[in-house]
Amino acid sequence: MTPEEFRTAGHQLIDWIADRRSDVENLPVLAQVSPGQVRRSFEIDAPSETVDFATLLSELDTSVVPGVTQVQHPMHFGWFPSNAALSSVLGDIASSGIGSLGISWESSPALTEVEEVVCDWMRQLVGLSDQWRGTIQDTASSACLVAMLVARERATDLAQNAGGTQSLTKPLVVYSTEQAHSSVAKAALLAGFGWDNVRMVAVDPATYAMRPDALRSAIETDIGEGRTPAAIVAGVGTTGTTAMDPVSRIVEIAQANDIFVHVDAAMAGSAMLLPECRHLWDGVERADSISWNPHKWMGTILDTSLFYMRDIQLLERVMSTSPSFLRSTADGSVTQYRDWGIPLGRRFRSLKLLFQLRLDGIEETRTRLRRDIANAQWLEAQVDATDNWEVCAPVALQTVCVRHRPDGLDGEELDQHTLAWVRSINESGAAFLTPSILDGRWMARVSIGVLGTERQHVERLWHLMRITASH
Amino acid sequence: MTPEEFRTAGHQLIDWIADRRSDVENLPVLAQVSPGQVRRSFEIDAPSETVDFATLLSELDTSVVPGVTQVQHPMHFGWFPSNAALSSVLGDIASSGIGSLGISWESSPALTEVEEVVCDWMRQLVGLSDQWRGTIQDTASSACLVAMLVARERATDLAQNAGGTQSLTKPLVVYSTEQAHSSVAKAALLAGFGWDNVRMVAVDPATYAMRPDALRSAIETDIGEGRTPAAIVAGVGTTGTTAMDPVSRIVEIAQANDIFVHVDAAMAGSAMLLPECRHLWDGVERADSISWNPHKWMGTILDTSLFYMRDIQLLERVMSTSPSFLRSTADGSVTQYRDWGIPLGRRFRSLKLLFQLRLDGIEETRTRLRRDIANAQWLEAQVDATDNWEVCAPVALQTVCVRHRPDGLDGEELDQHTLAWVRSINESGAAFLTPSILDGRWMARVSIGVLGTERQHVERLWHLMRITASH
Repeated sequence: MTPEEFRTAGHQLIDWIADRRSDVENLPVLAQVSPGQVRRSFEIDAPSETVDFATLLSELDTSVVPGVTQVQHPMHFGWFPSNAALSSVLGDIASSGIGSLGISWESSPALTEVEEVVCDWMRQLVGLSDQWRGTIQDTASSACLVAMLVARERATDLAQNAGGTQSLTKPLVVYSTEQAHSSVAKAALLAGFGWDNVRMVAVDPATYAMRPDALRSAIETDIGEGRTPAAIVAGVGTTGTTAMDPVSRIVEIAQANDIFVHVDAAMAGSAMLLPECRHLWDGVERADSISWNPHKWMGTILDTSLFYMRDIQLLERVMSTSPSFLRSTADGSVTQYRDWGIPLGRRFRSLKLLFQLRLDGIEETRTRLRRDIANAQWLEAQVDATDNWEVCAPVALQTVCVRHRPDGLDGEELDQHTLAWVRSINESGAAFLTPSILDGRWMARVSIGVLGTERQHVERLWHLMRITASH
Repeated sequence: MTPEEFRTAGHQLIDWIADRRSDVENLPVLAQVSPGQVRRSFEIDAPSETVDFATLLSELDTSVVPGVTQVQHPMHFGWFPSNAALSSVLGDIASSGIGSLGISWESSPALTEVEEVVCDWMRQLVGLSDQWRGTIQDTASSACLVAMLVARERATDLAQNAGGTQSLTKPLVVYSTEQAHSSVAKAALLAGFGWDNVRMVAVDPATYAMRPDALRSAIETDIGEGRTPAAIVAGVGTTGTTAMDPVSRIVEIAQANDIFVHVDAAMAGSAMLLPECRHLWDGVERADSISWNPHKWMGTILDTSLFYMRDIQLLERVMSTSPSFLRSTADGSVTQYRDWGIPLGRRFRSLKLLFQLRLDGIEETRTRLRRDIANAQWLEAQVDATDNWEVCAPVALQTVCVRHRPDGLDGEELDQHTLAWVRSINESGAAFLTPSILDGRWMARVSIGVLGTERQHVERLWHLMRITASH
């Protein structure tokens, strides 16, 4: 394809994207397709002939769009927000158009240095000190794996340079809670700790936050039985209920026992753009690593997950390789992001943040986050004030966990009722919210924070919830 | 930013991209900036004010573009090709514009199923049997780590579900060669094997390919000394010289000893689009996993790395988590790609391949790859026929490894001469090629295969090499 052919098709595509985004409220939130339906709309055999661009776009409309769950829809209240601010989409398009290759500073100095600049801006904007240096990873799952690998190597004085974890005589242990994201346990298992050495520390029954006394006691038991505590993952805004593990207490215990602390603020990192929320991660300065995802609530299109560490030298010692074909005269005076994570090659992802910050501005984002928090508080008040409805967990940010409990309903029957009304809403396409298990029972998570979600949408959802659950 | 503001800015951006791509030959190949130069062109403080789109674009021109090494430049012969075909850029833009979230089938059925369709098309196009199922990863580094983790768990009957690698009594061993990409050793270390348990099997001094007899003997030694061989990484098109490890012999040895084989065809996978090249990975059907990067020679923009396995159940057992908030009624009848790799969230990357296949067509790609192979053979012939120049390794595909050896020059002096003439070319901005170490001595890799590189560009490079090296 020539640049001129690209120009013509590109203009059509921009219009197609703008039209779709304008029209998003007219689409069902949850894709109304059955398993295999999208797949069957394509030929089984690899295509041997080409089509023109207009034909391809109309195939997208027919085959692909109906199979997309519209997470940009203002009635999407599922999982966590996965906003794609159009300013950041432009940054993504610029990154794609530049076609840069990030495998070393030399392969694209701008890719490296703009990432340094933007990660530092983001650090300032969430109020972290300049002890922290950041990088962009694809997701918080990968960031957590990196943190677990660094913690493992820190606890073993870089065992990877000798016999690896295989040579250890005292098992290393990781601490988290059952409220932590599933990626935490996955990271611990992939890092080789083994399920036997993953501790699910008890949480406070009211706040679902890690109990410091239970953490301390688990650590003491492990030490007493000859194991080595290596890492604690503190959740700041856990997936189920946005619970806030007490970072300050946790780092205190960790430092007394020389344990690495990773703060998983994938969701709540965005909240730290608001000074009034920063008390929620009080103590974070003494943690060892932090991850948070602008690609959630803040609205920088996926994949934009920030990962900060204080001891970059340690990170580089665990992650670095320096083969001859990547060496250059600039080594030593520049940042080599390949040594800050798992993949060698990287995209020019910082442009997504740069564009959003420069075009929308951070104050617009802050205003929007405050709107969402107010909307969540409004919904919480409605649920609290309504018979047979209950708020199941503290509303720390923008997620409201609810149950509708008709008189006398409990146990399995309550579960079936919850799943039934939530599915009924979801399958209608009118709105989407996520069922999730809390204390062994299903509840519904209403996660507010799509860019286009205003009070009227939350009101509409609440109306829908009441009529559906009472039906 | 509203959809209408996006529309206006998007059209400007498309023109900007098309203009830049048309103009790429007028830019220096290697970015002509010093360390810190790009960084210093940005404010240290996070921006508090917004700018209009035209201003932002002009800032990109001033601050960012001069810092980009132009890997799309036809005189770029460095590393491996990192082509960004404009058809695939359009697919990337569409992915960004759709703003989909891949965390489960339900969160975007189309994202999952188009990836299934396209990975299967790519399987057919490189001649693999339908025993293989594929997924898109960011890079071959991550794919290799996944393979090492799967191999580790396979060899230990899923030790991660109990004591992890920490509980093993017999160390697991990984086999590769010094010619393998640095990501192989990195993956082995991150997977916890430990450097002591990574074997660099001897290579054939003429072909730089793994010697099967040396592999067999290393395995026998390890078994004899009480260790467990767990994984072999066979390189198909290694980074230094595109050497081809003998996959057929390797899988034979592996199967006799129940060892997992990962085939790293990051570069040469593209060559397998040509039936006449497939003998180069003969035996691949009996391997356990394969990775190859359409984002290299084939030209699908980064990040598009394909990873295929035969035993998907094993992959899922190692990688899966199934938290309640991700469960849905479709479970069991659909593919959950989150269980096929490390990150939970994924982009709609398959559109990049879909667009390239549907707009350019595979025959255009095949014609181009054959052009590049012919150009490499032409250059090889020129070097061979010229006094004081030598081809250092077999030209298996499109990379020609060369040295200029003035009469009597050897050892350190030869190294300095090589580095000097290569750097002189690179720093001029006229062309770019990568110095690399082979047999302990620097040589120059001429890696042919940028979309726009025609015979005239290779001729120009060869002229430049001769005048620069003889200076």
